[in-house]
This record gives sequence, structure tokens and C-alpha cells, in this order.
Amino acid sequence: MMLRHRIATVHGLLWPCVLAVCLAGCAARYTAPVADPLPSWQDGAAKARIVDFVRRVTDREGADFVAEPERVAVFDHDGTLIVERPTLVQFEFLYQRIRDLAPAHPEWAGTQPFQAVLADDRTGLAAMDYRQRGALIDVGQGNQFQSDFDEAVTQFLATARHSRFDARYVDLTYTPMIELLRYLEAHNFRVYIVSGGGIDFIRTISEGVYALPRERVIGSSTKSELRERDGRVAVYRKTGFRSLNAGPFKPLNIWLHVGRRPILAVGNSDGDLDMLRFTALGQEPSLAVLLQHDDAAREFAYADDGARVREAAERYGWLLVSMRDDFRRVFGPIAD
Amino acid sequence: MMLRHRIATVHGLLWPCVLAVCLAGCAARYTAPVADPLPSWQDGAAKARIVDFVRRVTDREGADFVAEPERVAVFDHDGTLIVERPTLVQFEFLYQRIRDLAPAHPEWAGTQPFQAVLADDRTGLAAMDYRQRGALIDVGQGNQFQSDFDEAVTQFLATARHSRFDARYVDLTYTPMIELLRYLEAHNFRVYIVSGGGIDFIRTISEGVYALPRERVIGSSTKSELRERDGRVAVYRKTGFRSLNAGPFKPLNIWLHVGRRPILAVGNSDGDLDMLRFTALGQEPSLAVLLQHDDAAREFAYADDGARVREAAERYGWLLVSMRDDFRRVFGPIAD
Repeated sequence: MMLRHRIATVHGLLWPCVLAVCLAGCAARYTAPVADPLPSWQDGAAKARIVDFVRRVTDREGADFVAEPERVAVFDHDGTLIVERPTLVQFEFLYQRIRDLAPAHPEWAGTQPFQAVLADDRTGLAAMDYRQRGALIDVGQGNQFQSDFDEAVTQFLATARHSRFDARYVDLTYTPMIELLRYLEAHNFRVYIVSGGGIDFIRTISEGVYALPRERVIGSSTKSELRERDGRVAVYRKTGFRSLNAGPFKPLNIWLHVGRRPILAVGNSDGDLDMLRFTALGQEPSLAVLLQHDDAAREFAYADDGARVREAAERYGWLLVSMRDDFRRVFGPIAD
Repeated sequence: MMLRHRIATVHGLLWPCVLAVCLAGCAARYTAPVADPLPSWQDGAAKARIVDFVRRVTDREGADFVAEPERVAVFDHDGTLIVERPTLVQFEFLYQRIRDLAPAHPEWAGTQPFQAVLADDRTGLAAMDYRQRGALIDVGQGNQFQSDFDEAVTQFLATARHSRFDARYVDLTYTPMIELLRYLEAHNFRVYIVSGGGIDFIRTISEGVYALPRERVIGSSTKSELRERDGRVAVYRKTGFRSLNAGPFKPLNIWLHVGRRPILAVGNSDGDLDMLRFTALGQEPSLAVLLQHDDAAREFAYADDGARVREAAERYGWLLVSMRDDFRRVFGPIAD
């Protein structure tokens, strides 16, 4: 406190402080070891390739330098930033909404797809087709004011817990990936989440969980309209998709929202194939990353599900990241 | 050069420099008058209300403080940031494209709406309905790779000149509005352009003309798909609107892109009414601004065209800005 007071009032006394700060800075630069920016990653080829890529695109003197406005990175959400097995968190939210609404709909007890939700028939729910899931989404997430939807999601995520891990869903993000977000931001990348999940759903947690502004989320969206409530003009969610952000619509929506081709993309499934191709094919420098879920002990093992994207990754030499081998930790807070 | 060398090598010699910079900074802070942030605006009620709004939402101790993530400002494009009379610059681009393509389409000479373009029938062009204009847009701006479209727009705007003013279109932005963009940014607002014009068209100039990143443009969009060319996956423009960003779709697209309600909106026509209502109605603090084109001498006088938005502005007490009375200058570079 004393020191701050002196700085504010007596400029002559500032000199020693300035010298100390300067010398400390020089010492850190020339003698201290550089802190590991990705401590939750195992030292190995995957980590080295990521660090090398970031070094190359930020080296102003190098051939691969990329100006800051073009440093766009995109991350899939479920299975890339946060656990997605056995059930997507957004589906858990949806099922809870259906259960909450069920007392007013006795007819649901004998009607699919509602019956499967109310009976907690996980096999039936997992086998549901696009049309059936759309019916649930329309009922659970449509025909309501946006602010009511946001509040319901926020309340659900504040407490919803994973069925296997003793933790809330929002605490089951992958620590190495969160470190990677921060590492990229420290090198003036603009990071976007690009999800097949709902854009509004993820926006309720983008700032609190990922420290990413709401506008950095791209996802599936519902048709909507403006309605008045309490003298206020508000967004009202209707039914039906405005955009289902999957497959080729991921890169097309990236173009809509960002207006740029990313130079780095991270995904984990066939649904990310077009986004990875859009990022990597025919453009240098670029880095496409495929996260492999091969860690049954610490998370889940289902890397074989993404056969198409895995084949493309091997053909084009994209970076395969093994959760088992490349993640030193899977969950838990990042180090400061 | 000498000075930089010394700083880099001999730290003892840094002291006098640091002191000089510090004293200069203190002097500026405590004794110099605050520079006028909006020198192209007349001193008057409009300017005072804008400055007061920004002061209130950035005063951490005040009742109207707005946290930085929520400081979103939206500006209409044509007629709000750039001259739109007698013809929108994007329509001039479209007509030029049609003329360029005409030699391969002899049938256009006898077919509307192409005939009106080729005959430069300005009355006929101005009276064109939505369907006819859509046919021109499909032919001139559809069925092509996005990168080819971007290049054509860039080439056009590099030279296209206004029919009345001795200047390029891109130099006919409104100086007071550009100052306002910078003023808001200096107070940590995130500024978006929200236009009925094409999102990709405006993005070609957003950085060069407005110093706004491409992702800060929201506009009308064309359906698109991914296609391969030269081993590269690229965005290919199809025909038909994906979204016509007008009326209620302006706020709905703001929600899609930003995920927030703006606290400041600026428009000039009935097409901005819903965006201004979304910003201002039922939310405090907020500022809705309606620019009135009432300056036939320096620009154009057509404020009477926006009867609905003018009525709303008067009913709700929105800020009416008169180009004639509130703009000290209309065009020309902003002062440093």
C-alpha cells in the first residue's frame, strides 16, 4: 500500500521501482525457464506439433507467419471440450424438461418418443431417429421465450451431475483442451466453439465454463420470432431447426459467423470431418486435430466410432491426439 | 535509432527516458484539457446525449454501469455509415456484374429485369420488386465460388465512384459516425454492422473502411454449399436468400451472431425499426439513435421516407440526429 501511495504522489521515488521491474523482466526473459504452456499434455509428438504450429504462425520473421485477424481456431464441443458419453448433456436437459412437463400431458405415457423418456428407456432413446428427437426438441425447447429457455438451462447445468463421474457436467471439461484454448488466446487467436448442439444452450456456459464470449459460439439454432412481453420486445423460440450445425453446415456456419477460414480446428467425430477438411485442405499453414477417445479407464473408449474422420486424418496427416497417451490429466482445474 | 539501441542494451540509460514518459503522462492527465472525442459533431443536445450515455454505462460507481461483455452496439450500414442515395453501392455492383455478363446473354436485351439494367433505366430499376431484384442477385452474385465473388467486389469498390460526389463510394462514409465507432470502441464496446445488404459484400470493406473485423458484420446471406476446387474445399454461393436481414430479422440475426441484446443501436430507416425497438424497449440503460437525412446541400434530404421509425422515435424519446444540424462535417477523414 505504501509503495502504491509513493508512486502516485512522488515521482522521484518511482525510479528504483522502474529499475527493479525492468531488471526482473530482463532476468525472466534471458535466464528463467519458459513456463510450460500446456502442463496437462504429455511431452510428446502431439504436444510438440501443436506448440510448433503456434510458434510458426506467430513468428513474424518466418514463412508461416499469420496475421492476427486470420488467427481463427474452431473447437467442436461435445466430446472435444466436454464429456459426451454416455449421453450428451443437452439431451439430459431435454429429457428433464420432458419429465417436468409430463404431468400436464398424460397422453405422453403411451406415445413415443415421450414414453421412452418417461420410462428412462436408454436403449430406445439412443436409437431415436432425427424426427423423433426433433419432436422432443420442439416440445422441450420450442414455443417459449428465449430468456425462459436460458434460465431453465442455467438452472439445470448448475446442478446436473454425470452418471458415472462424481461431478457436475460443467466440471467435466477436458483440462488439456481448456489449456489449449488459453494458450491460443495468449497468442492472439480468436477461439470459437462450433457445435452440433444448440447455440443458445452452449452460450449459457460459454463465459462461465470456457471464458469465451457468447458471440464465440456457433451451433444449431431454432426458428424464432420477436414477441412483446411486459412492454419488452423479446426473442421467442418457435419449433423446427433454423440450422442444424452438423457436417458441411459446420464450415458454412463458420463462414456465416466469422467470414474466415480457420487455421486450426479440433474435433472428435465424423460430424467434424467437413470442418477439419475446410480448415486443412489446400491451405498452409493449418492444423487439423482429431481427438481420439481411447481411454476407458479415465474417460471412455469409442474412437472406433469415427471411422470416416479417422481415415481422412491418416490420409492427410492430421494430428491424432490420444486421450490415453497425450493427456497427462483429463479433468480438473487448469493450473494458474 | 540511437535511442532504441541504448534501451535494448544499457539499462542504466533507461531511467531518464522512463521519467520523461512518466512526467509527460502525468502532465497530460492532470493539466491538459480532455480532447473532444467527437470533433465532427456539433456541440449540442445530440452529441451531449451520446457522450452522457457512454459516460453513464462506463461509470463503475454509477447506477447505469454496464459490464464490458454487455457493451454491444449495432449500426445499420447503408444510409447510417455510408451514403445510400441515389443508389445503394451494392446495387451499382450488381448492375455492373450484369453488364459484364451481358455479352454471353443476348436474350437479356429483351428480358426484364435485365433489360432495365442494360438500358440503365434508373426509374425502372428503382421500381423493381423483390422478385425481380432477386433474379438479378441470383445471376450476378450466385453460382460462383465465394472467393471469386469477394475478388469481384474488392475490384469494383477499389474504383467505383459516386454519381454526384467527386469521390469513391468507400470514401463517402459519414465522418461523425466513424468517430462514433472509434469512441465506442475506446470505451470497450463491441461494434457490429447490421445491414440489409449482403454480409459478404460488406465484409470485403469492413476492415479497410471501418476498421471492424469481418466477424462484426451481420447481413443478408445467400444459400451456399461446399465444393472442391484445386484440391481445396471452398464455399460456393448458390442462389436464393439464406436470410434477408431486414425488419425483425435484424434483431433475430443479432441474437444469432452475438447472443446479446445491444445497448446502443443506430439506424436511419423503417428497416431499422425492429432493431431499434429490440435495443430500446423495456431495457435500461439503452440508446436508440435515428439518423435523419435532412441535408440536401451536403448530402441528401429524404428523412420523410422513414415515417414509421420516425413516429416510434418520437413516441419513445429516441435520439434524433440531424445530419444538417448535428454533423459539423459529413465526409472526409477523421482527425487523429
